[in-house]
Amino acid sequence: MALNIAVLPGDGIGPEIIAQALRVLEVLKNEGLDMTFTEAPLGGQAYDQFGHPYPEFTQEVCRKADAVLLGAVGGPQYDNLDRPLRPERGLLAIRKDLGLFANLRPAVLFPELANASTLKPEVVAGLDIMIVRELTGDVYFGQPRGMRTNEQGVREGFNTMIYSEPEVRRIAHVAFQIAMKRQKKLCSVDKANVLETTEFWKEIVIDVAKEYPEVELSHMYVDNAAMQLIRNPKQFDVMVTGNIFGDILSDEASMLTGSIGMLASASLNESKKGLYEPSHGSAPDIAGKNLANPIATILSVAMMLRYSFDNEAAATRIENAVKKVLAAGYRTGDIYEAGTKKVSCSEMGDQIVAAL
Amino acid sequence: MALNIAVLPGDGIGPEIIAQALRVLEVLKNEGLDMTFTEAPLGGQAYDQFGHPYPEFTQEVCRKADAVLLGAVGGPQYDNLDRPLRPERGLLAIRKDLGLFANLRPAVLFPELANASTLKPEVVAGLDIMIVRELTGDVYFGQPRGMRTNEQGVREGFNTMIYSEPEVRRIAHVAFQIAMKRQKKLCSVDKANVLETTEFWKEIVIDVAKEYPEVELSHMYVDNAAMQLIRNPKQFDVMVTGNIFGDILSDEASMLTGSIGMLASASLNESKKGLYEPSHGSAPDIAGKNLANPIATILSVAMMLRYSFDNEAAATRIENAVKKVLAAGYRTGDIYEAGTKKVSCSEMGDQIVAAL
Ligand SMILES: CC(C)[C@H](C(=O)O)[C@@H](O)C(=O)O
Ligand SMILES: CC(C)[C@H](C(=O)O)[C@@H](O)C(=O)O
Repeated sequence: MALNIAVLPGDGIGPEIIAQALRVLEVLKNEGLDMTFTEAPLGGQAYDQFGHPYPEFTQEVCRKADAVLLGAVGGPQYDNLDRPLRPERGLLAIRKDLGLFANLRPAVLFPELANASTLKPEVVAGLDIMIVRELTGDVYFGQPRGMRTNEQGVREGFNTMIYSEPEVRRIAHVAFQIAMKRQKKLCSVDKANVLETTEFWKEIVIDVAKEYPEVELSHMYVDNAAMQLIRNPKQFDVMVTGNIFGDILSDEASMLTGSIGMLASASLNESKKGLYEPSHGSAPDIAGKNLANPIATILSVAMMLRYSFDNEAAATRIENAVKKVLAAGYRTGDIYEAGTKKVSCSEMGDQIVAAL
Repeated sequence: MALNIAVLPGDGIGPEIIAQALRVLEVLKNEGLDMTFTEAPLGGQAYDQFGHPYPEFTQEVCRKADAVLLGAVGGPQYDNLDRPLRPERGLLAIRKDLGLFANLRPAVLFPELANASTLKPEVVAGLDIMIVRELTGDVYFGQPRGMRTNEQGVREGFNTMIYSEPEVRRIAHVAFQIAMKRQKKLCSVDKANVLETTEFWKEIVIDVAKEYPEVELSHMYVDNAAMQLIRNPKQFDVMVTGNIFGDILSDEASMLTGSIGMLASASLNESKKGLYEPSHGSAPDIAGKNLANPIATILSVAMMLRYSFDNEAAATRIENAVKKVLAAGYRTGDIYEAGTKKVSCSEMGDQIVAAL
């Protein structure tokens, strides 16, 4: 049966980078991998067409799909919309709707791009961290929430940080399973000295650990983790944490590489359906200029083949093609340095397709 | 009238570093600055003596004091205590008890120690950020909180993230006033695209800004702030944020310098009473060995003179003494590098006292 892929180009550079990712998938399709693509809007693009950042049309397309490939959402023209209509609400809505609770964000330093980091080469050379972030719980979705005037007549804003046992259990299993396929080291990040939510989180992670005796489990407070990522990031293999800490730490970790245009991400549900997107944003400033770096999106396609379609061979092949093109010196503007060959977004696509 | 200073040595290296800080204060006292010192225990030390990390005796001493000087709290021997008895609960309790809502954490790179950073010298040279963290609100203290079995029979942990208008207003004023004395740039960090608590925070900060037309106010999402601190930390002058984001970002920022043994902190209440402590922890591994770096504690004394006692002259004098000793090449083990003179904790005290 054909693999049914929903394609959501989104805003800003989204359409350009998605176009290059689709060229890579076309190569596999022409070789016989049976896939169908259905395009749908998300974010600002969806608001423009349907008046909502995650409209029903897109919901239907995505629910039917085996996997979703997303460009990026957001742009300054949407900043003054009512909050529920803004592009990022489309992102939160699709995560919740499809139950995409496991966000995998690799922070990998490509040896050819070591100079791009603001950290010293010896600190980041060989960096390869996988951050597993819970994506459908925590203070992002907890109820009650809002703004109110309390009994003393004082205005306040409030949210609920909350995790249930099944929520923690399932993300812990994902993290341990990923650790098993890597260096077998897992660091669970919490603030158990202050927050009961994360004290509870830690207890459950310790319980799940019994099923993975080979994995070396450690625990770290989130403030210390933010420091250790800078002091000695290579101490980490896999990190697992809640939605808000994961939001902060995964962005911090990706910036250690200095080349966020290279970093892919996957957000998976219980049945391996996933949404795949670059870790970077929609970069409105360079949109439509054929300047964007399509590599993070192309590597997201590799993650899709690996995690949703169990096609490790195709995933590795794409990753190797990217490595080859980097080794040959091709660079988009964001990762360009003297002595390398500057190419456009579509030329980078040409090179990767050729290297496949 | 004599300045009444409560001295809380605490655990680990606390007593050693406090001893050196007191020597610095003794110099000023001998010159005529009228001060009295009252010692009291906090943290593990207090648990050992009184069975509580913030016992009544300490409460009384601190409530009467004009300022509190703290070493550090915590140690492995207390890790298995019931949570309410652990050392860090003493810290949370004293903050709340004394109303210390404004935590000032400078992240400053001393030119002589530029090599200690894991970041490239050109990225951090001249770094001088002041992080203003709200310290008595947010998810740290919000009610309800705890663990429970919900109506569906599922166990969960939960906390309440919450900020009221007066809480945000007063910390915003502190931040704007500090910005006025510096480069007049303030960045307020929130997650207003997701959390109502911080959407509310942002609104109030924008309102308070009207009273400080000279300050250039910007807003940044916390995930982006975690990235920007690594990408280009020198873009920041003063940052202001809530308790939990401030916990994470202030530790991240201090690690940019690579020498957290140099960084002081102040936690102030509405009437300029303050608790002053080094940003680093109690370092149980080197406790009692006369190896610790007393500089962060000595610089905390300088902050005390500046913020609680309005004695800018004495504050600057201490800071200059520290600079002189660094320039002369003296280093404790944590900041030692080849070509400098390694000294013990008390020898560093000797040098700074001499330089005064
Ligand atoms: C846009 C925003 C809602 C989102 C998040 O906070 O999850 C983004 O920062 C991310 O990490 O994907
Ligand atoms: C020890 C802990 C409770 C404390 C905090 O989270 O506030 C510490 O990390 C700090 O930043 O002073």
